[in-house]
Amino acid sequence: MGARLVVIGGDAGGMTAAAQARRLDSDLEIVVLERGNWVSYSACGIPYLVGGEVESIHDLVARTPQELRDTYRIDVRLRHEAMAVDLDAREVEVRSHERDRTFRLGFDQLLIATGARPRRPDLPGIDGPTVMGVQTLDDASALLQRVRGAGAGRVVVVGGGYVGLEMAEAFVRRGSEVTVVESSPQVMSTLDHDMGVLVSTAMRRHGIEVRCGTRVEAFSEGIVHTDAGELPADLVILGLGVTPNSELAAEAGIGLGDGQAIRVDRRQATDTEGVWAAGDCCESFHLVTGRPFHIALGTVANKHGRVAGINLGGGYATFPGVVGTAVSKVCSTEVARTGLGEDEARAAGFGCVATTITATTRAGYYPGGGEIRVKMVAERGTGRLLGAQIVGEEGAAKRIDVVATAITRGMRVHELVDLDLSYAPPFSPLWDPVQIAARRSAAAVDG
Amino acid sequence: MGARLVVIGGDAGGMTAAAQARRLDSDLEIVVLERGNWVSYSACGIPYLVGGEVESIHDLVARTPQELRDTYRIDVRLRHEAMAVDLDAREVEVRSHERDRTFRLGFDQLLIATGARPRRPDLPGIDGPTVMGVQTLDDASALLQRVRGAGAGRVVVVGGGYVGLEMAEAFVRRGSEVTVVESSPQVMSTLDHDMGVLVSTAMRRHGIEVRCGTRVEAFSEGIVHTDAGELPADLVILGLGVTPNSELAAEAGIGLGDGQAIRVDRRQATDTEGVWAAGDCCESFHLVTGRPFHIALGTVANKHGRVAGINLGGGYATFPGVVGTAVSKVCSTEVARTGLGEDEARAAGFGCVATTITATTRAGYYPGGGEIRVKMVAERGTGRLLGAQIVGEEGAAKRIDVVATAITRGMRVHELVDLDLSYAPPFSPLWDPVQIAARRSAAAVDG
Repeated sequence: MGARLVVIGGDAGGMTAAAQARRLDSDLEIVVLERGNWVSYSACGIPYLVGGEVESIHDLVARTPQELRDTYRIDVRLRHEAMAVDLDAREVEVRSHERDRTFRLGFDQLLIATGARPRRPDLPGIDGPTVMGVQTLDDASALLQRVRGAGAGRVVVVGGGYVGLEMAEAFVRRGSEVTVVESSPQVMSTLDHDMGVLVSTAMRRHGIEVRCGTRVEAFSEGIVHTDAGELPADLVILGLGVTPNSELAAEAGIGLGDGQAIRVDRRQATDTEGVWAAGDCCESFHLVTGRPFHIALGTVANKHGRVAGINLGGGYATFPGVVGTAVSKVCSTEVARTGLGEDEARAAGFGCVATTITATTRAGYYPGGGEIRVKMVAERGTGRLLGAQIVGEEGAAKRIDVVATAITRGMRVHELVDLDLSYAPPFSPLWDPVQIAARRSAAAVDG
Repeated sequence: MGARLVVIGGDAGGMTAAAQARRLDSDLEIVVLERGNWVSYSACGIPYLVGGEVESIHDLVARTPQELRDTYRIDVRLRHEAMAVDLDAREVEVRSHERDRTFRLGFDQLLIATGARPRRPDLPGIDGPTVMGVQTLDDASALLQRVRGAGAGRVVVVGGGYVGLEMAEAFVRRGSEVTVVESSPQVMSTLDHDMGVLVSTAMRRHGIEVRCGTRVEAFSEGIVHTDAGELPADLVILGLGVTPNSELAAEAGIGLGDGQAIRVDRRQATDTEGVWAAGDCCESFHLVTGRPFHIALGTVANKHGRVAGINLGGGYATFPGVVGTAVSKVCSTEVARTGLGEDEARAAGFGCVATTITATTRAGYYPGGGEIRVKMVAERGTGRLLGAQIVGEEGAAKRIDVVATAITRGMRVHELVDLDLSYAPPFSPLWDPVQIAARRSAAAVDG
């Protein structure tokens, strides 16, 4: 038996790393500690489980513990929580919730992949049974039980970010009356205000009540108390973003970085020899600002896991970083962003030129197309593409990938105009909306 | 009145250039000669007009001659054909088909945008009234008249390229029995054979009879004669590709290049002072092979027109080139390609590694997704991305744009793996199929 790798957390970051390490090193002993009841699942699929597009919770599981044992010889231990890391002894203190006992598990290499948890502001009643976060499959299971039991005729979603959008859609599909409460002047604070307005408008069109500029003050049985009055609620969903689960690492003396996420280098190594981190609990590097930053996304977690796993398996890999790409939808309206928004760009010290265009997702004369709005942010003077945001109907959002690729390669908006992008009437207007946006942006940069 | 620009041909290349030149130079006199009855239209929309998705031929017209006169002060002359160019006298000999007279029109600058025409091999009966090409709106109008008159119960499409696919779909929608005859072993010769097989299979699934490896020998009333027997046909559509309309230029002594297309430099200037060319009649430059080549596509024609127009209007612009991106669909099956195929790459002298993956267009558990096949071609040793081809169901094809962008920037397949592409279950599996393909390709490059 070779050295022992202990992985804390069995979802995207942790399990990807474990499987990847196994592929490169067949001798490694790999133990994965998961405090919940599920590993290797798609947390991003939870809204669609709630909304009914996905039938069974098991559909969201990529690989069962048994498959992981059989295929990858990974020792997956469910309901096992890492309580502390003893760096001197190179041991993890583990609590088995099932057997109600605690033991110590030695490691040669340790991967921390503890994920993140929904933010729960310190408000009266927030720990009540009807106020639920949605981050793990255990959360999803608890939510489904409640919905099937007590029902969810009136749902209040607190927070108008990605989770807010997707959970709002899910409950609209279930036939609930849905209200989204957002303290900012618009939903989707990861977009600029002007683009957020479009999302609010679309949500209302889809039958969701949207209350922006409204602050939640307390929760009580059946009621959400806000600074603008009371909202009846059989169920409250928290969509206020997430906090990295970095306490375990911090208590062991491992360094934290942006947003209290575990600090890692490009190989996903922490500042402590033999300890690595991957996924929502740790930092990423932003390719536009050139700074570390925390982003909790399944894609990023998987990439972290892949890189950590290659290094843990004896290979060499680095994670170059991210440009902050994200996509979501609420009913038929698609939302996407990448790079820096106008406000973010200015906050990061860039002089920038922001322009917005309206186009269609297909040739104007071709049926089934819808409106698409593209905002583009370019650096003043150089015209370097800094970011873009898209709000539109079917087929709109995935276009963000071209922009993400272009940003990664440091392209100027002028260069986007020349790109040989695909066109046929069912797919796009003759100039793809991204290129229409780039033309407008280039003209603005050139004055 | 300023200098006079004469434009020969009033569709994508010519009219885009004319409008662009006007934006920069308000003094220029601009005359557009169009031998047909329409200018400024979407030829790419014709299959959807025939198929009924587009109701009226007028829907395909972006701007009428009157609008062009009113908005851009462009003197558009329909049914005026340029018969010859006299470079010494700087005059075009023009035939007015309406008035049945010929006159000479002087120019200071001349833009040739004569387009391309469907190939008509020299076969018995090919000039019969039921054998129709589909390139101009006049062609479309004639085709619709015939279909509405004599009917089109049995349609034979000769050639299984983009036009073949799209016209086959159009007639399937109309309820015709459709047979596609292709002399190659598979349809879609712009794809590699293995990807073409997927398209043939899909076409059959969509109810189209596909006869590959079958050569057409002659046409007679109601019958297409092939080397594998006779096919009944009320109507025959030619989809054998196009030939640039470069004879007018060649007869005037202007140089031709690849595929008998008019040779142009990066500013769209021909080898003759004051004479420019844009669109399907002239060459482009291929960014992967580093060679001029001829490609007839609306997007490219528009880009040519834009660049030519800027230069004609007194500005400065160059067209960097294309990577050969194209997209099409037949019923629900989408087809896309960019860069070089495996065979093309070898023919261009590249050592290459080709790999193919199968994935889904959405998260596996999310409803409505379909299969997507991505073939990726990378340079041996360096891993430089040379090309990709996609065949798949809804949402598959537009992913080619990421690859087109990456090729343009000379990226390695390894770098695609790290791209921060967007993900949410309704849009994509966690790793976008393009990145799954890149992972496979990178592994193959690394051996």
